[in-house]
Amino acid sequence: MSEHDDLHWNSAITQVQPNEVRLRGYRIDELMGRVTFAQAIYLALTGTLPTPETGRLLDAILVASIDHGATPPSALAARTSASTGAPLNAAIAAGILSINQYHGAAIENSMRTLLQVLHITAGDADRLASAADEVVANRRAARERIAGLGHRIHTADPRTARLFALAAETGVAGQGVAAVRALAAALERQTGRALPINVDGAIAALLIDLDLPPEIANAFFIMARVPGLIAQIHEEQTRERPMRAIHPTDHGYDGPPPRALE
Amino acid sequence: MSEHDDLHWNSAITQVQPNEVRLRGYRIDELMGRVTFAQAIYLALTGTLPTPETGRLLDAILVASIDHGATPPSALAARTSASTGAPLNAAIAAGILSINQYHGAAIENSMRTLLQVLHITAGDADRLASAADEVVANRRAARERIAGLGHRIHTADPRTARLFALAAETGVAGQGVAAVRALAAALERQTGRALPINVDGAIAALLIDLDLPPEIANAFFIMARVPGLIAQIHEEQTRERPMRAIHPTDHGYDGPPPRALE
Amino acid sequence: MSEHDDLHWNSAITQVQPNEVRLRGYRIDELMGRVTFAQAIYLALTGTLPTPETGRLLDAILVASIDHGATPPSALAARTSASTGAPLNAAIAAGILSINQYHGAAIENSMRTLLQVLHITAGDADRLASAADEVVANRRAARERIAGLGHRIHTADPRTARLFALAAETGVAGQGVAAVRALAAALERQTGRALPINVDGAIAALLIDLDLPPEIANAFFIMARVPGLIAQIHEEQTRERPMRAIHPTDHGYDGPPPRALE
Amino acid sequence: MSEHDDLHWNSAITQVQPNEVRLRGYRIDELMGRVTFAQAIYLALTGTLPTPETGRLLDAILVASIDHGATPPSALAARTSASTGAPLNAAIAAGILSINQYHGAAIENSMRTLLQVLHITAGDADRLASAADEVVANRRAARERIAGLGHRIHTADPRTARLFALAAETGVAGQGVAAVRALAAALERQTGRALPINVDGAIAALLIDLDLPPEIANAFFIMARVPGLIAQIHEEQTRERPMRAIHPTDHGYDGPPPRALE
Repeated sequence: MSEHDDLHWNSAITQVQPNEVRLRGYRIDELMGRVTFAQAIYLALTGTLPTPETGRLLDAILVASIDHGATPPSALAARTSASTGAPLNAAIAAGILSINQYHGAAIENSMRTLLQVLHITAGDADRLASAADEVVANRRAARERIAGLGHRIHTADPRTARLFALAAETGVAGQGVAAVRALAAALERQTGRALPINVDGAIAALLIDLDLPPEIANAFFIMARVPGLIAQIHEEQTRERPMRAIHPTDHGYDGPPPRALE
Repeated sequence: MSEHDDLHWNSAITQVQPNEVRLRGYRIDELMGRVTFAQAIYLALTGTLPTPETGRLLDAILVASIDHGATPPSALAARTSASTGAPLNAAIAAGILSINQYHGAAIENSMRTLLQVLHITAGDADRLASAADEVVANRRAARERIAGLGHRIHTADPRTARLFALAAETGVAGQGVAAVRALAAALERQTGRALPINVDGAIAALLIDLDLPPEIANAFFIMARVPGLIAQIHEEQTRERPMRAIHPTDHGYDGPPPRALE
Repeated sequence: MSEHDDLHWNSAITQVQPNEVRLRGYRIDELMGRVTFAQAIYLALTGTLPTPETGRLLDAILVASIDHGATPPSALAARTSASTGAPLNAAIAAGILSINQYHGAAIENSMRTLLQVLHITAGDADRLASAADEVVANRRAARERIAGLGHRIHTADPRTARLFALAAETGVAGQGVAAVRALAAALERQTGRALPINVDGAIAALLIDLDLPPEIANAFFIMARVPGLIAQIHEEQTRERPMRAIHPTDHGYDGPPPRALE
Repeated sequence: MSEHDDLHWNSAITQVQPNEVRLRGYRIDELMGRVTFAQAIYLALTGTLPTPETGRLLDAILVASIDHGATPPSALAARTSASTGAPLNAAIAAGILSINQYHGAAIENSMRTLLQVLHITAGDADRLASAADEVVANRRAARERIAGLGHRIHTADPRTARLFALAAETGVAGQGVAAVRALAAALERQTGRALPINVDGAIAALLIDLDLPPEIANAFFIMARVPGLIAQIHEEQTRERPMRAIHPTDHGYDGPPPRALE
């Protein structure tokens, strides 16, 4: 290809000029101190600056997934890489590369299921229960798990209850929350067994109510987890000797004792 | 190694029990809605929950670096990977792997320089100017750049001014801010030419005043930039055709026009 | 999980004992000097040591894909990462993360198409033409490209001819080669236009005749390309200044002039 | 930067023209079937086509490092990523990102030590013993390990003996091999204890005698190990359930029993 080919392209995210950086039209220095990081994230991803109330819900979504201990494979992969002397960014990358279909993808999977339910209702809230029944029956016939319901460890995930309470408080709760509740009810109707809505299902519902597309659902898990991975990596680097054999489950907690917010 | 070897180890970050996840001792569901993501990040990394005021400064630090357009190599690498059909996490990893010594490392480099200045003063603020002079003279003799001062594009980075104003407002500004100002003054004294404190130098100063160690300085750049990389990746996936030749500089901005916060 | 859980597992690849490393049962020091790297690769992946003749074909397959210049996104991503000061392994990883559905996946896609053709024939070589017709018709109805046929740059890829000649010479050519030829013939019959079998289609055919499963087809592209990526990275590190803007297409060749093997 | 800027650049590796791909001047289709992958690797990296004899040594070097079982962190990180459902390329990348200072860097470290010894001799072979003594004494004074000598598991690495035998046979053995032997002798003189030359030290010596620069030394480890990582990943994908806890040491071997080359 010659140098005269026209490869010009455009981006709608950020404009950099001397002494002025604008994100989606807003001066970054004006955003600083006036919006939270969570609000800026939503702005960067969607082009819309959320209200402080919505920002508070986004903060809660990100806090919910910030870390889940040393057992998840993303933490183990990040620690394994760090243990060989990797620089911080390489160890983070190794961790992120271990977030896939079986770990960290539940938010997107759940969101797609909820959107399927909502698609069947065609906007008629009265059809939610029957739409959820249809989706659940199809999944059961195909012997597939329903993402967003049930958890290996938590029978009543306290993060779910908190997210729904905040979604109600902030006025964000809408058809996404209704859909995930309908889905859980349908599953209980059909199996006689209640599976709790897990934190991924709750976040999926809220991302629908926040008008986010499913293809960036997992982004919220990744953005939230990066600080957790960094904490795991930094602890590995400062507390353990290099090249140790890292047991995936035989580890305890010796951090601060339980404490409450004041 | 036999299965009887003792590989037990401990972590002080997160405790996971049925229906209870605690980060550094605090229940995550209790943190949700009451602290921001930025505060939770600091808690995850250090074990200390910062005040809301400090959280506001942390939010500003993270917002400052959230995106710098499509030209930085991390954005180009992430877009290049995405353009081949990479899943989101792989494209993010490719971007993060392009954050190294020449891109994104300035915060740590600057922080180490400032700590060197402060080390020479041995706690005596009166010796700040002479300590800065010594460090600047050494760097100049070695013909090395001084990280944190000067910028390729911005002669007066508006993000620096904003960070220092917020640091003053929130009462965080301390010896870190004093050190970077001393350094800039020393450089001007010795060269007769003023180089502005850039955003990396400002963040480095604030991370010192926030008691963070230099080895996780770059973490703040990476955590801040991940959402920007995701925005770049998502735009590539939704707006461009796969396998296009991505020009590194010949791109314009066609997003929202300049707008002000209300 | 307690330390008493049984996490014991087995691997059938390599046995490490003091002063003895065995790959799939063979002592590695005995393999060294007696088998080629290509033969050892096949042994590692399948558990079977190929004959020297088959090894020669494997060498040719790997040589075929070793590099394709600086334009492919994997080369550009690797150079972009290297340009920021990445260590070698990180830059290689960035390159590999840019090998996906639209770049480097054609071998697997083609292999799956050929296996579909062969599945329809149910072992009856007389049914190859009709099976190929069926597969081509279905793809055309779905308006999908047929991987392995056609090339953006090469109208008659010389690597394809060479691979087929070697496959005949070494006696490896079998139903895989027959299937890709049947597919090309069917496409020409239905469209009146001949598309050449490209290097990916040729390799896909040979991997079938080498009894390799499609899920490691892309492995051959990745293994072959890693040295090419390393050459690109090393050239970037030794010849270019850091953080340059890397034009994706406006580059020339200034290496050794055309030369022939003696 | 405007579209008129001159970003033209050159590469000396590969020339792609319609129906012709040339690596370092040679037509790739002409190389195929006539040179091994190992020879092509050397050609890609250096621009020089090695003789078949040298190629045989390169094959042995690459075979030597192809796999070392499931315990090395690169294998564990690759398996951890694969276990979460990662595509092949992402799992390979996670593995490569776990090859760093403490795992896989010994070839480069050893090579730099040997080059230091050779630098002191200034080409005078009679000064080898005293130069080795000087380097060993300095390392011991600094309480630093000497890369290339000693092994955690192998007291007499059979791969070392084989590499040296092949280097003698192929006529490649030269000052590199002499230097590593001088180093081992010096260490024994000073400590009274013989440490064996390990496989990394042997490869380092041979890479010097093959005129390769130290900054691509680790490339040989990475290129060699990628097929091993792929074998580990493929076994994880086909034999284990997703998201299992992967014990780092409590694993056995259940592959083919010991067998000899015919």
